[in-house]
Amino acid sequence: MAPLFRPNGYIAVLLLLLPSLDFVTGGKLLVIPMDGSHWLSMQPVLKQLNKNGHEIVVVAPEVNLLIKQSDDAFSLKTYPVPFTAEEMDENMRGFAKLPFEDVPFLVMVSNMKTKMKETADFFYSSCRHLLYNQELMTYLKQSDFDALLTDPFWPCGQIVAEYLGIPSVFFLLKIPCGYDSDAAQCPSPPSYVPRGFTKYSDHMTFVQRVKNMLFYFTEYFLCHFVYSPYGSLASEFLQKDMTVVELLSGGSVWLLREDFVFSYPKPLMPNMINIGGINCAWKKPLSQEFEAIVNNSGEHGIVVFSLGSMVSEIPMKKAMEIAEGLGTIPQTVLWRYTGEVPPNLAKNTKLVKWLPQNDLLAHPKTRAFITHAGSHGIYEGICNAVPMVLMPLFGDQMDNAKRVESRGAGVILNIIEMTAKDISNALQAVIYDKKYKENIQRLSELHLDRPIHPLDLAVHWVEFVMKHKGAAHLRPAAHDLNWVQYHSIDVIAFLLAVVLLALIISLKCCLFCCRKCCGKGGRVSKKSKSKSQ
Amino acid sequence: MAPLFRPNGYIAVLLLLLPSLDFVTGGKLLVIPMDGSHWLSMQPVLKQLNKNGHEIVVVAPEVNLLIKQSDDAFSLKTYPVPFTAEEMDENMRGFAKLPFEDVPFLVMVSNMKTKMKETADFFYSSCRHLLYNQELMTYLKQSDFDALLTDPFWPCGQIVAEYLGIPSVFFLLKIPCGYDSDAAQCPSPPSYVPRGFTKYSDHMTFVQRVKNMLFYFTEYFLCHFVYSPYGSLASEFLQKDMTVVELLSGGSVWLLREDFVFSYPKPLMPNMINIGGINCAWKKPLSQEFEAIVNNSGEHGIVVFSLGSMVSEIPMKKAMEIAEGLGTIPQTVLWRYTGEVPPNLAKNTKLVKWLPQNDLLAHPKTRAFITHAGSHGIYEGICNAVPMVLMPLFGDQMDNAKRVESRGAGVILNIIEMTAKDISNALQAVIYDKKYKENIQRLSELHLDRPIHPLDLAVHWVEFVMKHKGAAHLRPAAHDLNWVQYHSIDVIAFLLAVVLLALIISLKCCLFCCRKCCGKGGRVSKKSKSKSQ
Repeated sequence: MAPLFRPNGYIAVLLLLLPSLDFVTGGKLLVIPMDGSHWLSMQPVLKQLNKNGHEIVVVAPEVNLLIKQSDDAFSLKTYPVPFTAEEMDENMRGFAKLPFEDVPFLVMVSNMKTKMKETADFFYSSCRHLLYNQELMTYLKQSDFDALLTDPFWPCGQIVAEYLGIPSVFFLLKIPCGYDSDAAQCPSPPSYVPRGFTKYSDHMTFVQRVKNMLFYFTEYFLCHFVYSPYGSLASEFLQKDMTVVELLSGGSVWLLREDFVFSYPKPLMPNMINIGGINCAWKKPLSQEFEAIVNNSGEHGIVVFSLGSMVSEIPMKKAMEIAEGLGTIPQTVLWRYTGEVPPNLAKNTKLVKWLPQNDLLAHPKTRAFITHAGSHGIYEGICNAVPMVLMPLFGDQMDNAKRVESRGAGVILNIIEMTAKDISNALQAVIYDKKYKENIQRLSELHLDRPIHPLDLAVHWVEFVMKHKGAAHLRPAAHDLNWVQYHSIDVIAFLLAVVLLALIISLKCCLFCCRKCCGKGGRVSKKSKSKSQ
Repeated sequence: MAPLFRPNGYIAVLLLLLPSLDFVTGGKLLVIPMDGSHWLSMQPVLKQLNKNGHEIVVVAPEVNLLIKQSDDAFSLKTYPVPFTAEEMDENMRGFAKLPFEDVPFLVMVSNMKTKMKETADFFYSSCRHLLYNQELMTYLKQSDFDALLTDPFWPCGQIVAEYLGIPSVFFLLKIPCGYDSDAAQCPSPPSYVPRGFTKYSDHMTFVQRVKNMLFYFTEYFLCHFVYSPYGSLASEFLQKDMTVVELLSGGSVWLLREDFVFSYPKPLMPNMINIGGINCAWKKPLSQEFEAIVNNSGEHGIVVFSLGSMVSEIPMKKAMEIAEGLGTIPQTVLWRYTGEVPPNLAKNTKLVKWLPQNDLLAHPKTRAFITHAGSHGIYEGICNAVPMVLMPLFGDQMDNAKRVESRGAGVILNIIEMTAKDISNALQAVIYDKKYKENIQRLSELHLDRPIHPLDLAVHWVEFVMKHKGAAHLRPAAHDLNWVQYHSIDVIAFLLAVVLLALIISLKCCLFCCRKCCGKGGRVSKKSKSKSQ
């Protein structure tokens, strides 16, 4: 025993132990997520990062929808906000009711804008209360994180990254109104890249291309009021003037929940990594309850129906219309619905408060998927090759639905106008018309034939940024140019000026020569005239 | 035994055998490679594809530099060409001599262009003799290939792909003069993407940006005479009018031997896959001969020196200058050189006819790499973190060298002007000034920290195109737009016309109103005037 008591002995033992202390190699990651489904798709990444030995701290407002301490993959730090859970729920319920209101278009737009402003105010207030929470910010500053993972749909995280002086990884589907491509300096030619909310495909008519171009300007009214306050807040908090685009241009890597079986092909930047379909990584065997329902569905199989976590209830008239439509098909329908039970609910339709969507879609007995066309649901439909009936409600869901329809993998229904017959017809189509299954099967095969799983890709790039303190070698020099320089307008103006100058000089020279010649001619003719006189 | 003679027995045995017949799942790949080092970097992909069970047929001219039947990973089909190996060697030797000629700039450009034309003629003639070789083309047509793998630096392969109606995968570093980005519809803003041969970085001054823009026009003279004949040949052979850019736009996937530790960050398209550093995949233990040399180099280690496979000899005066420079360092220098031995060769310098470059660079005793700055060598330098002395000779080598220098990982020498002292100084710098090693080490770490090896990535995408008959979902709609539409010039013109029309109408209305008012005023004043009179 004696040698162990000698200091050298201690050191030797410690040195022997070192290689087995895996956590020594692990880093520290700060996560400032976006609430709702955005948070759900980020969770598998955190779990994997935690498995790889990294310490993860998630920061979220005390009042939130889904960001809870569900397991020990991360530690959750919350901060107080000046609104209650009831107020937030009330706002969400109000928002979810909007798509079902049968009002004139302009009234609908106005209502939507009011509600968006209300929701945006919740998030903005939450951001202010994070940034000005001195205790929390001091803790974050002292924690010496290697990087920040955030969803820039809510640009608050990047302000924290700038404040802490750490690199950031963005995890998102998109930021509305092209803030993402602007901030990443990614070209997005309006001639074939349709703007959000237009419902256009990448093949546009002349009129559509004109409207797509004009949409650049209208987006100002759509998004400016939501996003520009974060530019002011960042400027105020960081004591450095910046717009929200400049703020977001600081992201080291953009993990985009996109895949070109679903999105239209368009340019990418080197620090944009497509991880579309990452949410399909969450797979579990069905619980006994669901397994029994699926197995009892017989040869006809099941239909999965969910309008997402935001829609808890539907006006009764509409719910009855839907219930009637669902009752016309021989399949068992699993409907995720927490509202009042429609009295005409058919025997084949089972209401559930929650359903394991991806696991049910993965079951071979699933024949169709009725969805609100949120991107998560659509990727789960694609991963599992289930044809879709799409009932888009708001935001990018109209665009998403159009993309699925344009690929022949689903049928769109207008939630306001649809009748029981429409629902029935749409379901019969996607279940019995082989082309829908064939098309979604083809998309699914293309989507799943990838060299590396999107989850591994996302984990790799977060670790890359943590390890290398960013990804400066992927940052285009375009960030260091202003708008005029980027578009070479100064160069073109200079070259035009040179050409113009050359033309003017040439013209002047010609005129001078002509005058000389004409002048001579004139004198000669005068002379000869005078001679002849 | 009896049951085996029954037909059902045969079928049963065949069915049992089927799962073990791996080749049933394998596809057929046609390869039309580019000669020289381009072919070498493609070979590991073919080997891996062959291991994966695919049948590979390589088509090459009878007279070529390096495309030989080296193993059974592929079968080689050659076709006769109207030139001899001696004529080709003579051309290559002439080409390789050019960089060492100390002549005025314009003479050098003129000599280079003459030699380029001569080389281009060899390739063009080879292409004609492939396309119009009826026997070979009939065999290819009947062989029912799944896809074609080709290096579009020599655009002949794509004409064959179009003729056979099969999808193609491009494997390349780049096509000069921006034909690659034009054909892939990849934006390449001249404000921060330097054109080839300019030696600019991605951070350009105003004057450099002007020159970079002007380079678009001069490229016409640099590359047009080499590439445009393939457009005419394709039009003639396929009986369909097309330019060479239109021809090359047919590529399904572009495997680019690029990585942003070396290239400047710029936009990519969804079907562009970066596989830079793929050539480092070839690793073997050193042979006894080389192992002995390296081990005998003592604490100082070795320097690897190669000017590539094209340069077989150097003018004696220059060779002696180099030999003198090499003699000043304590390291053992392994110089790949087949020319006449310089009489002043120092003891530390060993001439070899060939050397396992990547394996030597991978050895921990290697201190520096003297290279002509070909992209393969540079990637091997980066993979193995060896600082470089760069002696660019022609083509993209000047640009390559500048990139390494701009990242502080090497020193450039001018092959014409360099003295023994310059060579010695450059070597001393990269070996003993720590910053070079630190910089190349950092680049190497960034380059090697990737989620998947470039070889696996390349193999995946070739198999993807074979399996799915192309990659249509990655093809941007930009291909279906003309230049005016792509740049939205028609839309902008229309919108300007509308604005102009609105302005004119407003102006006319204003003028009309003014006239009305003034007219009235005029009448009133006249009236009042007459009244006052």
